[in-house]
Amino acid sequence: MIRVVLSFLLFFSGWAGAAVLPSWNDSESRSAIIAFVERISDPQAADFVPVDQRIAVFDNDGNLWSEKPVYFQLLFAIDRVKSLAPQRLEWKDQQPFKAVLEDDMEALAASGEEGLLELVMATHADMTTAEFEQVVTDWLATARHPRFDRPFTELVFQPMLELLDYLRGNEFKIFIVSGGGIEFMRPWVQEVYGIPPEQVVGSTIKVEFEMRDDGPVLVRRPKIDFIDDKAGKPVGIHQFIGRKPIFASGNSDGDLQMLQWTTAGEGPSFGLILHHTDAEREWAYDRESHVGRLDKALDLAAESGWVVIDMKKDWRVVYPGS
Amino acid sequence: MIRVVLSFLLFFSGWAGAAVLPSWNDSESRSAIIAFVERISDPQAADFVPVDQRIAVFDNDGNLWSEKPVYFQLLFAIDRVKSLAPQRLEWKDQQPFKAVLEDDMEALAASGEEGLLELVMATHADMTTAEFEQVVTDWLATARHPRFDRPFTELVFQPMLELLDYLRGNEFKIFIVSGGGIEFMRPWVQEVYGIPPEQVVGSTIKVEFEMRDDGPVLVRRPKIDFIDDKAGKPVGIHQFIGRKPIFASGNSDGDLQMLQWTTAGEGPSFGLILHHTDAEREWAYDRESHVGRLDKALDLAAESGWVVIDMKKDWRVVYPGS
Repeated sequence: MIRVVLSFLLFFSGWAGAAVLPSWNDSESRSAIIAFVERISDPQAADFVPVDQRIAVFDNDGNLWSEKPVYFQLLFAIDRVKSLAPQRLEWKDQQPFKAVLEDDMEALAASGEEGLLELVMATHADMTTAEFEQVVTDWLATARHPRFDRPFTELVFQPMLELLDYLRGNEFKIFIVSGGGIEFMRPWVQEVYGIPPEQVVGSTIKVEFEMRDDGPVLVRRPKIDFIDDKAGKPVGIHQFIGRKPIFASGNSDGDLQMLQWTTAGEGPSFGLILHHTDAEREWAYDRESHVGRLDKALDLAAESGWVVIDMKKDWRVVYPGS
Repeated sequence: MIRVVLSFLLFFSGWAGAAVLPSWNDSESRSAIIAFVERISDPQAADFVPVDQRIAVFDNDGNLWSEKPVYFQLLFAIDRVKSLAPQRLEWKDQQPFKAVLEDDMEALAASGEEGLLELVMATHADMTTAEFEQVVTDWLATARHPRFDRPFTELVFQPMLELLDYLRGNEFKIFIVSGGGIEFMRPWVQEVYGIPPEQVVGSTIKVEFEMRDDGPVLVRRPKIDFIDDKAGKPVGIHQFIGRKPIFASGNSDGDLQMLQWTTAGEGPSFGLILHHTDAEREWAYDRESHVGRLDKALDLAAESGWVVIDMKKDWRVVYPGS
């Protein structure tokens, strides 16, 4: 009888070990993640963290899914300009819309941050929140990535999906904390990441309540409310979550302050940086990239004790089913 | 054997029935709540609502705890003016601070909304978020209510605590949606209501990230960011939660739009209004009250199908242990 029980225990412990982060190679980053989670989950350990304080925050663009050639939300805005153009004839001669309609990415880039903002306002506002949700859902159902010819929601990182599962299995509550639009993410994060919409922190535009003849609506106004990027990320974490996370995962200098905030102070904490090093299976970029620049955060990683994932070496698989 | 099982079933069903909302009299409001929860929890019912969509929102002031003689947060601000006064000698001659220091509530009221805002800014800002949390926690540990001579966190409504428990037991996820300051509530809502800090929506002031020599901090600035009241409540619900609740509970016209938003549209939903009718055990007020005015929402309750709690008739107990 004892032998049977032992076999069972060995069988299950062996199985459990094999099931953790299976798309990760046996790397330092994988070991460090597992060591941290085991340390804070062990009620006997000095670093034990009660379940209600196990808050993890994940950047989205370039961290849970790809962000090249440009942020997918910008590709959404570009497609939307094209589909709205027949009703907006003035756009033919007006930047940055002209650049979009002529597929002139150089002219679009030259329009700078202001041009991009104008693009977002013209394509993301002046409709109800329900209408916007429908537009996003429709786009994701049909749009395909220019390089991989797959739906954008398939260009998520399999090893990160496994990390989300592993943390959830250890009773972490996981939030997305992204510079992207909160309403661009909420319609699909439950299905794709298993993260409920109320656990998404992101950039917002002004929304107003309006009572119409057929009932109340919320209307999206063309006015920036909050930019959840860089120093805005700890602010967003504080306003939306109200407690300091113990685990932060990002991939660019836009995540620097989130990493600093999460790993500051006394208690146990974990900072994770995804370094895009795989030009073949995904992309290789860091200090010189316009999208997802990783420079200062990479410099500070070692002294800050943040773990850096080398995508090419550490991941057996990049996208699901690949 | 069958008889034993039957006895058990009867025993437990009887016990379960008695345990639901025990501080409520057998009233129409109690029956309506239970009928709704049973209807949306029954997988066979037409109105079944999947667990992830069971979002409930509760106003705080006058709904989960009392709000007389004035909002407790205002009493906090008043106490704080008094304790800061020795360092702010100019306040002796400056309204609204002069009124507070002289206990002249009429002059304070005369300073209007602008005066109150000035009071909040002077007492709630220019410190880190960690410092503010400590100040709130210290105040709640020592301050006592002028009429009842009890800590403010004991002036919560026992029947509402039971309602929170009942909804949680039926897998609702409960959010506070209050006009009060989000950071004034978060330090104590877990202990008092069993609601985690990340499930609090409220008014906010601007917060900024700052890297100091001894690490990063978030600093509270004297600038209003968002007022989570009236038409702001559906906006706050949308920005923080991102889905429409199916259950809304409030007590004043400040909750009107939240009730309208929650109960609009097709699916099953429930609107609940607490009418303060009990001058003896708590307070009796509605249409003429400066704090917690309930006028338009009361007029609209019948046609909107919202259930109105008559505190005096419907509640066996008001405060815990009373």
